[in-house]
Amino acid sequence: MTESIPYNGQHILAELHDASGLADPAWIEHALRAAAEAAHATVIDVRLHAFGPGQGITGVALLAESHISIHSWPEHRYAAIDIFLCGHRCDPEAALATIARHLDARVENYRMIPRGYGVENNTTR
Amino acid sequence: MTESIPYNGQHILAELHDASGLADPAWIEHALRAAAEAAHATVIDVRLHAFGPGQGITGVALLAESHISIHSWPEHRYAAIDIFLCGHRCDPEAALATIARHLDARVENYRMIPRGYGVENNTTR
Repeated sequence: MTESIPYNGQHILAELHDASGLADPAWIEHALRAAAEAAHATVIDVRLHAFGPGQGITGVALLAESHISIHSWPEHRYAAIDIFLCGHRCDPEAALATIARHLDARVENYRMIPRGYGVENNTTR
Repeated sequence: MTESIPYNGQHILAELHDASGLADPAWIEHALRAAAEAAHATVIDVRLHAFGPGQGITGVALLAESHISIHSWPEHRYAAIDIFLCGHRCDPEAALATIARHLDARVENYRMIPRGYGVENNTTR
């Protein structure tokens, strides 16, 4: 490590199950923007790709504070969510709660991982 | 869980240190596209945001198989990398090695996390 100043990034990985609205790009974009607002994050751009009617969506909100992403499998009512935020004023858990509420989903496999140039190593290769 | 069929997503989180080229959007885009190719993934779109001359870049390659993202802090020669890929034929470690090579970087805090609708829970709330 060449830096001792901590960078306080937090990265949530969460799996959403029993979710609704997973094939609706407009609703997914609304959920991503609402999540960013709930987290006090600043949206730079939102990009979505719909794989076809009734099929999954890949989407990302690029943020001044990193990103929020979603990859959905509506046929399994499943979505993989990432919320990666830096900065003391951001609240990634508020973002996750907002997405889960918009998609009427159950959260499983929730993880919050600290990231950054001041974070202690746990693996090196 | 409502599904028993495993979804074989793999998500690498890695911190890159002592990295070069972190303020160069064209080089970052080249690295992301080369990483996707090395992983046998299909690029849908690449979106980059440069925070200003000499400053950091936020970028994501949206893939048919999920995404690769980078957030860079050139003043610390640090970048946070995510490589999230589904599908048996994709190789996320090849993507990481490609990015690290392009940025002449040292990989720390490497994690590979299985994700999907058939992955066993380790946390529920």
